[in-house]
Amino acid sequence: MTSDVSRGKAKRHSLATTFTQPKAFSRMPQIRQLFDADWPKTWEMIEPVFRAGDTFPYPSDITMDDAFDIWVSDPAKTFLAVDGAGSVVGTYYLKANQPGQGSHVCTCGYIVSPAARGVGVASAMCQHSQREAIAEGYRAMQYNLVVATNTNALRLWQKLGFDIVGTLPGAFDHPKLGYVDAHVMYKQLA
Amino acid sequence: MTSDVSRGKAKRHSLATTFTQPKAFSRMPQIRQLFDADWPKTWEMIEPVFRAGDTFPYPSDITMDDAFDIWVSDPAKTFLAVDGAGSVVGTYYLKANQPGQGSHVCTCGYIVSPAARGVGVASAMCQHSQREAIAEGYRAMQYNLVVATNTNALRLWQKLGFDIVGTLPGAFDHPKLGYVDAHVMYKQLA
Repeated sequence: MTSDVSRGKAKRHSLATTFTQPKAFSRMPQIRQLFDADWPKTWEMIEPVFRAGDTFPYPSDITMDDAFDIWVSDPAKTFLAVDGAGSVVGTYYLKANQPGQGSHVCTCGYIVSPAARGVGVASAMCQHSQREAIAEGYRAMQYNLVVATNTNALRLWQKLGFDIVGTLPGAFDHPKLGYVDAHVMYKQLA
Repeated sequence: MTSDVSRGKAKRHSLATTFTQPKAFSRMPQIRQLFDADWPKTWEMIEPVFRAGDTFPYPSDITMDDAFDIWVSDPAKTFLAVDGAGSVVGTYYLKANQPGQGSHVCTCGYIVSPAARGVGVASAMCQHSQREAIAEGYRAMQYNLVVATNTNALRLWQKLGFDIVGTLPGAFDHPKLGYVDAHVMYKQLA
């Protein structure tokens, strides 16, 4: 990747641009596949996000077993972001968004540890997921339900090349705000 | 429903408008829940649609058992449309489109027997599904992947109150046309 500076400059949303800057690179967590043994510490990190219930459409009283099914068993792959001290700072899953004739479009879900927000973990995971998706042969990535009030995520996905292709009126029952809009976001990868 | 003519007139997409006209009503099939014993004749009707592979994102070589899971086991409810002679002329399923905070939005899939196309079966099933969804407490209905080349369905859903809220570029791998767009369609019910 480090020899790709010139190519990175030429492509606006190139994944190379971030990873060829030493400063940005040094802040990036290591991203690797999640193994079953990682689950307890992963659950510890993501449980508060599921309990808060303001970003993902999972029941806020979801059980650990159901969360494992959603986050690890069902997806094709699940990844962990680990910082220099070995702490889990993020996780994401990758899977086909539809079967059959829709299976060339993937979808992902990302969670960043509250303790590690604002330092580029989500960005690193999204870029990693795009590379992974391309390597797996997917032609596009779709987010089905980006809650409109989750403005940080929205801005980040847009910065990383995703378009809001549709808005679903009142499609998310926010625990504090009631029915709020959600966006469908999409990025062509190939 | 028959006493609702005045209300039906006031609401452009009211379900009452169709059902209060005797001529339209007389052409409508009877719609009832599907029981396991109905499956063989249902599969016989829907198998060619799955094999053609140009409307639903299911592998065209899908097995009967997988089709049963998709059409009957997974959904909350599955219905049959039966004509005056007792023949199955259509079927649809109804289920929540997302879990948890998205579970107030439902989704449906509809199939009409090739032998019964153009006589209002899809329209009757869509209207039936909207009433059923409202009765079940859903606040909206969403179609996630309406293939852009399926123009008859597109026009019908729009006529029955659905908006195209988004277009997914190349999201459907059409068996004859290659990658074609698909639309996300949505209708508020409450």
